[in-house]
Amino acid sequence: MQTTKTINLKSRPVGKPTLKDFEFTSSEIPALQDGEVLLSTRYVSVDPYLRGRMSDAPSYIEPFEVGKPISSGIIAEVLESKNKQFNKGDYVSGMLQWQETQVAKTDGLLKVDPDKAPLSAYLGILGMTGLTAYLGLTEIGKPKKGETLLVSGAAGAVGSVVGQIGKILGLRVVGIAGTDEKVDMLKLKFGFDAGINYNTTENMVKAIKESCPDGVDVYFDNVGGEISEAVLFNINKFSRTVNCGAIAVYNDTELPKSISVQPFLVKNSSSMQGFVIFDYADKHPQGIKQLAEWLQQDKLHYTETIREGFDSIPQAFMDLFEGKNKGKMVVKV
Amino acid sequence: MQTTKTINLKSRPVGKPTLKDFEFTSSEIPALQDGEVLLSTRYVSVDPYLRGRMSDAPSYIEPFEVGKPISSGIIAEVLESKNKQFNKGDYVSGMLQWQETQVAKTDGLLKVDPDKAPLSAYLGILGMTGLTAYLGLTEIGKPKKGETLLVSGAAGAVGSVVGQIGKILGLRVVGIAGTDEKVDMLKLKFGFDAGINYNTTENMVKAIKESCPDGVDVYFDNVGGEISEAVLFNINKFSRTVNCGAIAVYNDTELPKSISVQPFLVKNSSSMQGFVIFDYADKHPQGIKQLAEWLQQDKLHYTETIREGFDSIPQAFMDLFEGKNKGKMVVKV
Repeated sequence: MQTTKTINLKSRPVGKPTLKDFEFTSSEIPALQDGEVLLSTRYVSVDPYLRGRMSDAPSYIEPFEVGKPISSGIIAEVLESKNKQFNKGDYVSGMLQWQETQVAKTDGLLKVDPDKAPLSAYLGILGMTGLTAYLGLTEIGKPKKGETLLVSGAAGAVGSVVGQIGKILGLRVVGIAGTDEKVDMLKLKFGFDAGINYNTTENMVKAIKESCPDGVDVYFDNVGGEISEAVLFNINKFSRTVNCGAIAVYNDTELPKSISVQPFLVKNSSSMQGFVIFDYADKHPQGIKQLAEWLQQDKLHYTETIREGFDSIPQAFMDLFEGKNKGKMVVKV
Repeated sequence: MQTTKTINLKSRPVGKPTLKDFEFTSSEIPALQDGEVLLSTRYVSVDPYLRGRMSDAPSYIEPFEVGKPISSGIIAEVLESKNKQFNKGDYVSGMLQWQETQVAKTDGLLKVDPDKAPLSAYLGILGMTGLTAYLGLTEIGKPKKGETLLVSGAAGAVGSVVGQIGKILGLRVVGIAGTDEKVDMLKLKFGFDAGINYNTTENMVKAIKESCPDGVDVYFDNVGGEISEAVLFNINKFSRTVNCGAIAVYNDTELPKSISVQPFLVKNSSSMQGFVIFDYADKHPQGIKQLAEWLQQDKLHYTETIREGFDSIPQAFMDLFEGKNKGKMVVKV
């Protein structure tokens, strides 16, 4: 019987995850049953939200079990199929386990076409990343031409797409990122109107005011924490904050404290709204279609950080929290 | 020439307002011009939001000027009129100055009918208070029959109306207030399903969980601060928080800190939205009509705390921050 390498959650991380929280095991590949497919992993998506699933706090998605495989968005090749809808040689995307080879049921698997876009794009710009940017911005941010859009974590996978869509829709777009190199990329590669390096900026409130002279109408927030505190002082009447993530506080072991948002929301008639992409499942097909169209029209660009090798998955994941990725982080297996 | 007593803002309060921040002056009543009315003040509304106008921080409404009269919602009798639409003996409501007698332009003045409801009701249940409760709950809270509505500041003017409307709309309604007497009133007079006295409750997170066994779908937040922190741990997926006020922190001289809301919003796909009643000006007539109908059907009850005498206005205002009012606080002049 064949065996495969698997990455299990060994222990729930306290604060930042470390290599000790992950365990490589070798396990047998079960026999293929009717309706199932045998898959060989090609690309693995690592994402900040997985940190939440490693804790056992209640959330929108079940926590990972200790001693069991971790799963995330994966592109795989079909090695063998006992399902009429999938053939040997097909490529599929789905929420799959961190295993080199695995048997999977096919519900939730989507065929992807390697001739239309690079395989890794289906984990990014044409996958959860792109949909998160597109649906979060349009459904919650409700941007209007001429408004100002501020994006935190702007050089990240989601943030860079949010900014570009903002430009397509006719907004002034300002991004916040952590290095000068990233800020340059925002402006030169992604067409942002301005960028702020929070690591070299002493007074973020003032810096945002200068970059957003008409105030902030839509804030697409990937980070939470101190950066988002500074934004509060710059929001306009009726502003909308899209709470996409809070990477700045995901590793905190105590409940993070911030400036109370309530008085700012009351005095500006402003909203904040969290979401996950699963909330808008009915809008995914339309979203992918729109993103693919913009991609083909060369209106959208994306950056990937591609790490190599199955064994590097945990480190790639941990590096997200150090800001070591530019754009979407994937691991090529 | 006649003189009248006026209350000016003497200084911007630091923290809680004190009597020293107010100044009683005597000033001349100017001659009546064409289009104007001469008004005698009958009832004065004191409201927590006025505290915001006493600071000079930017807000949804201009700050009061130091050395100038304070204004708020007032019911007055027309003593003399040079405007065809108003006659001597009419009663009007409007944003007027804290003066015993004043000359006023008529834009923004509404005639009120003392035969349909007591005059003071037009400052409360049929005025800004009732509209704030009705429009905040329906437009932002979007309550659905069978859901759970939690109200903070529930024994206050707005809170008690919010809870009753929640019951009319078929929700489970739980209120948070600061004394056992108020909690009893919520249940006995206003029909709330349960109440929590935050002053005698050690573990608010647990108390809310017990009173809201199915979680909180709509949180109508009048207070902010620690109470609202405890609510975060009990919000349901897709919950809506209506940020009506933050009386718990209005007097803070430093920026108040609270548990970061972002991770809670993200993991529950939840929203928070601030508002002021002026945002929904086009919906006021329909709102007043609905409230008057419920009032006539005896489905809505209200409590007033009526103080007597023009000179007691500043103290009545300050007492709001001590929770000394039950329901709407007005001063009868």
